[in-house]
Amino acid sequence: MSKKILIVGGVAGGASAAARLRRLDEQAEIVLFERDEHISFANCGLPYYIGDTITDRSKLLVQTPQAMKQRFNIDVRIFSEVVAIHSDTKSITVRSKDRGDYEESYDYLVLSPGAKPLMPPIEGIHHPKITSLRNIADTDRMKALVNEQTIQHAVVVGGGFIGIEMAENLRELNIDVTVVEAAPHILAPYDTDMIAYAEQELMNHGIQLELGNAVASFEHLKQEDNNNEQINVHLKNGTAITTDLVILAIGVQPDTAFLKESNIALGTRGHILVNDAMETNIANIYAVGDAIEVTHFVSNTATAIPLAGPANKQGRIVADNIAGLSSTYKGTQGSSIIKLFDLTGAATGLNERALQQLAIPYHVIHLHPASHATYYPDASPIALKVIFDEQGKLLGAQAFGKDGVDKRIDVIATAIRFGASVTDLTELELCYAPPYSSAKDPVNMAGYIGHNILADRLRVFVANELAERPIDETVLVDVRTKEEHDRGHIAGSISIPVDELRDRLDELDKNKEIWVYCQVGLRGYTASRILSQHGFNVRNLTGGYKSYTMSSL
Amino acid sequence: MSKKILIVGGVAGGASAAARLRRLDEQAEIVLFERDEHISFANCGLPYYIGDTITDRSKLLVQTPQAMKQRFNIDVRIFSEVVAIHSDTKSITVRSKDRGDYEESYDYLVLSPGAKPLMPPIEGIHHPKITSLRNIADTDRMKALVNEQTIQHAVVVGGGFIGIEMAENLRELNIDVTVVEAAPHILAPYDTDMIAYAEQELMNHGIQLELGNAVASFEHLKQEDNNNEQINVHLKNGTAITTDLVILAIGVQPDTAFLKESNIALGTRGHILVNDAMETNIANIYAVGDAIEVTHFVSNTATAIPLAGPANKQGRIVADNIAGLSSTYKGTQGSSIIKLFDLTGAATGLNERALQQLAIPYHVIHLHPASHATYYPDASPIALKVIFDEQGKLLGAQAFGKDGVDKRIDVIATAIRFGASVTDLTELELCYAPPYSSAKDPVNMAGYIGHNILADRLRVFVANELAERPIDETVLVDVRTKEEHDRGHIAGSISIPVDELRDRLDELDKNKEIWVYCQVGLRGYTASRILSQHGFNVRNLTGGYKSYTMSSL
Repeated sequence: MSKKILIVGGVAGGASAAARLRRLDEQAEIVLFERDEHISFANCGLPYYIGDTITDRSKLLVQTPQAMKQRFNIDVRIFSEVVAIHSDTKSITVRSKDRGDYEESYDYLVLSPGAKPLMPPIEGIHHPKITSLRNIADTDRMKALVNEQTIQHAVVVGGGFIGIEMAENLRELNIDVTVVEAAPHILAPYDTDMIAYAEQELMNHGIQLELGNAVASFEHLKQEDNNNEQINVHLKNGTAITTDLVILAIGVQPDTAFLKESNIALGTRGHILVNDAMETNIANIYAVGDAIEVTHFVSNTATAIPLAGPANKQGRIVADNIAGLSSTYKGTQGSSIIKLFDLTGAATGLNERALQQLAIPYHVIHLHPASHATYYPDASPIALKVIFDEQGKLLGAQAFGKDGVDKRIDVIATAIRFGASVTDLTELELCYAPPYSSAKDPVNMAGYIGHNILADRLRVFVANELAERPIDETVLVDVRTKEEHDRGHIAGSISIPVDELRDRLDELDKNKEIWVYCQVGLRGYTASRILSQHGFNVRNLTGGYKSYTMSSL
Repeated sequence: MSKKILIVGGVAGGASAAARLRRLDEQAEIVLFERDEHISFANCGLPYYIGDTITDRSKLLVQTPQAMKQRFNIDVRIFSEVVAIHSDTKSITVRSKDRGDYEESYDYLVLSPGAKPLMPPIEGIHHPKITSLRNIADTDRMKALVNEQTIQHAVVVGGGFIGIEMAENLRELNIDVTVVEAAPHILAPYDTDMIAYAEQELMNHGIQLELGNAVASFEHLKQEDNNNEQINVHLKNGTAITTDLVILAIGVQPDTAFLKESNIALGTRGHILVNDAMETNIANIYAVGDAIEVTHFVSNTATAIPLAGPANKQGRIVADNIAGLSSTYKGTQGSSIIKLFDLTGAATGLNERALQQLAIPYHVIHLHPASHATYYPDASPIALKVIFDEQGKLLGAQAFGKDGVDKRIDVIATAIRFGASVTDLTELELCYAPPYSSAKDPVNMAGYIGHNILADRLRVFVANELAERPIDETVLVDVRTKEEHDRGHIAGSISIPVDELRDRLDELDKNKEIWVYCQVGLRGYTASRILSQHGFNVRNLTGGYKSYTMSSL
């Protein structure tokens, strides 16, 4: 007898599950319900369509109901909202635009409802020019507003991925943009000592950042011409911004209100709870995507990470399990990437903030390798931060740069997936020719530094520790050249260039700890090896003066 | 008592070992002997300097003897050739340009002599305009010839990495170039079904390829103006090419003739034999780089792979072992990359040719994913080939494309380093945003295809098998649209578009094996799932019509 499988939600995980199910089971009856008009659209592409980087709207529509029918024999029902689940009778209630309410039975049910933008109860939030971006309808509405060319200024509320992508794309349209973020910095996956790269890039392109600030209320400014109505965004610090458009990108919440009466177990914030086969607490009901709680691959703790890659993978795993193939999801590690004008930021694993919350001890290194051999044209620096535990196990990495950032974080993400230690990075044999890398790739370099730390051949300090440096018990030494020192240095440091260090050891007090620094950390490492072998107690500033200047912004 | 360490050869592995040794041992006496003038130069950059991509010659000189002395307290002796090793007395004979012959004793000896270009005994090979490229002196000589602007045509003998990089760079100077390669194809790391991408790119940029041909003799054409003397390159097939310059890039051999009397064990082709600590058969003598035989990481067999990345890693490992830190080299996997005008080629692990020689059974898949989301501008196709054994263990990968090739091969190279199976690629969580990748990255896609093959849900054939297809026992079905079929198809195939397949099953004979194909393999996979579930015996062309057209060139 053929299986009847109902899928709730036709984007990312839901569409992936449907296609895979059909490939595994030609006989199954598969029905996909989508509340809106469009299934399987390019939701990650929506900001770029608004910014005119993607100019052809039809390219956003990856699959159509007709194509899903023809290719995969899937019964796709759009404008069909699933409003209730009755697991006792193995059926659901569907609210159809055309057919009204009806029931549909299932053998297996796959929930892929996604997440919806948070809409906090801020005074004045309901207004046609205060909008969020989730689906094609939102996109069309926002695109129409932008096309009217009455938008000279926009406020983006929320500095997460969608907020920052929207800010970039609106700016590309020559709209003045202010981003309001309640946290001290944008883009939570990055630690405070890395995020300056992103914030500087945005400010260099004319985006205003209101950090550590939040919206108190929206005031609707009536105009004679109603189309040009403006909004006064009152911030909690008492200032106000008059703007033509407000994008709400504060965050998302699982769109799971329809499950309230279903007995399907939800987490404290409404996420669907699943096991590693993606099955809920109720037999034959599975869930995937932004609406579920996942296990973090690195920390093994419960979390919610709304990303398209994991959603698609989960869709395939659900299909396998329904088709009788054993398949498990091993967790999400939070690999993410964002384009910021000419800059790329990428991250994977846990950051320091998360590790501190979990009380996991860790080492941090910073380095600034070139994207490829410096003697070959157009090499550009990569700011790379790698975090590993006291046994060396890789916990996370973050990077910013113009080129080669995606490659290095993908390599580290792969190593993390195999449970690698930072020392394992020394052995990776990556492709080298001058246009692409260096004989020692940035990832190898991170491995070398980590290996030296684990072997106690190198002790480092991070820039933030300078604020607590015990002045009387330490000497801060700039081992760069005198010329570099004179162009700018850390307050309180003396200058002894590394190439003169062996001859000037008597200038240093062996009873004090020597804190050395250079420009990026490499000469400092050499200096620290010279000093420690001459009996000094020494630490090197990881990432050097460059990391210092970026972390103190 | 301090150690005295002598290092023979100051490029790549030798220079790496010297710097690491000093960082580990401030007291050691370290002497580095270099036969030529320059140490630690950018040997991978030499072709790009000749081609004017790198314009500043000083950038090629990564380290100078003076800097090595100041920074690392290394006694660098240039123009100093080591001509004999006396392991019984732990000393070497040095032939110095200034000092004549002298002996130097050692506690530890590191051999990093490198490899030198092969100079076969071809008639007429000794001529000022027949030259190879190994060092700065060669580079200066070749650059001078090119700068004279009397070179309108050049012949590159040998289609390996150096030969092809030289061909590209000469062509960038508007010189007409012919590459003569004795094998049927250039660039041995690539299989014949992939190399057409490279060869087409070269030909599209006006480079002539003489494949399966070799030089019989060089004829010196005397001119009245001696500077413009030309060479007639007589090929084995009887033709001749008149040219202004001949680059010999036939291959390299270990530069180990000076070890003949040393009792240091050499391989059949003269490579120094070392254990995994990089130690030779003679205590306290180590060797690294292009001159040694290594273990192939994937096949575990002895091989020689002259690459800069491994040489640098080996240099560090030797230093660790001499300094008393236990460190082993786990083998070379042959990760390599080459720029070919607008194209990138990259490979890692073993190719089919090597696997057949080793009699290792394997699976092959081809795919043609986009470098990033196709709805985002400038996505370009990547031709990706992945090879894995019958248990799924990854053996190798090859790729060509305009963008994102280095990233995907580096990720697969990393997975190979951890002994991954092709199925593990399905679980890699790589960074996704539309400008960088797709929600299912090309590497994930390779994993999915491999997983389906291992689970026997997909049987594939490669384009080369079409020649042996038993016509009477098979039906070849093009499942692309009728329009695609009409634009060009594989001879003998019938057209049944995948979207019509379920309704046209009765057109196919269940007693015959159905061989399906589409454009890149994805619709063919869907078709093969439909057919196999309806009782057909079916195989899908991996890589589709695209791989077919490229493999039949």
